[in-house]
Amino acid sequence: MQEDPMSIAFAEAREAERRGEAPIGAALAREGAIIARAGNRTRGDNDPTAHAEMIVLREAAGKLGEHRLTSCDLYVTLEPCAMCAGAISHARLRRLYFAAPDPKGGAVEHGPRLFAQPTCMHAPEVYGGIRESEAAAMLRAFFASRR
Amino acid sequence: MQEDPMSIAFAEAREAERRGEAPIGAALAREGAIIARAGNRTRGDNDPTAHAEMIVLREAAGKLGEHRLTSCDLYVTLEPCAMCAGAISHARLRRLYFAAPDPKGGAVEHGPRLFAQPTCMHAPEVYGGIRESEAAAMLRAFFASRR
Repeated sequence: MQEDPMSIAFAEAREAERRGEAPIGAALAREGAIIARAGNRTRGDNDPTAHAEMIVLREAAGKLGEHRLTSCDLYVTLEPCAMCAGAISHARLRRLYFAAPDPKGGAVEHGPRLFAQPTCMHAPEVYGGIRESEAAAMLRAFFASRR
Repeated sequence: MQEDPMSIAFAEAREAERRGEAPIGAALAREGAIIARAGNRTRGDNDPTAHAEMIVLREAAGKLGEHRLTSCDLYVTLEPCAMCAGAISHARLRRLYFAAPDPKGGAVEHGPRLFAQPTCMHAPEVYGGIRESEAAAMLRAFFASRR
């Protein structure tokens, strides 16, 4: 039985934490098949853009040989930031599933609410709050340990 | 005499157009030295995130071995979109210089105006409208040719 995409995103988040990164993971699926999976890598890669979402979008587009991912769905453990929400829009993703909302850095349900902006060219269907408490606990523990 | 960073950004924009990409270019400088330069590569690389700004941010962070670019300045021929403005904020860039404003896709002076959002963690100093008419003419010609 294939693992569900959100479980893969959580596994990637825990793996990112083991590497000293923020515990955020993502998986990108098309018609039930996992195309790409990744955790945050900003520190390890010295790359300010290496959020989990960006990595799976880039990898999936490369694998599929397309710069748009119209039939793909993204699963991520935290509400995407403005950078990632912008990339999701550029990639024409079909659906976005996320776990914990992010009142401080999120840009989907918080802050600029990018997909609701009049200038937004493409908005995916959005499903937030999946396994929210599990993701929120992981993030709280991480940030508490760094104070 | 060293070429100025905005002229390099324009040269990269023209080179991107020759490759069939949107004519947008960027250069990243630190204390007057060019660290990275690039034009858009979304189509050629099959990468929805490969805007000129993203490419130079990633390349510069890799070269400098840092995931933050606090003393660096970005020069780009078009007002950055939400994705790129978000990345600029994550990278803690010092200054942003851009040529043409972009009422449709820009996220600095238009749309979500990301750097003015209460949740924005870091905003660079912004200088827009440099050689604006030259950049706008290049973009108009490109989009007119694709209709």
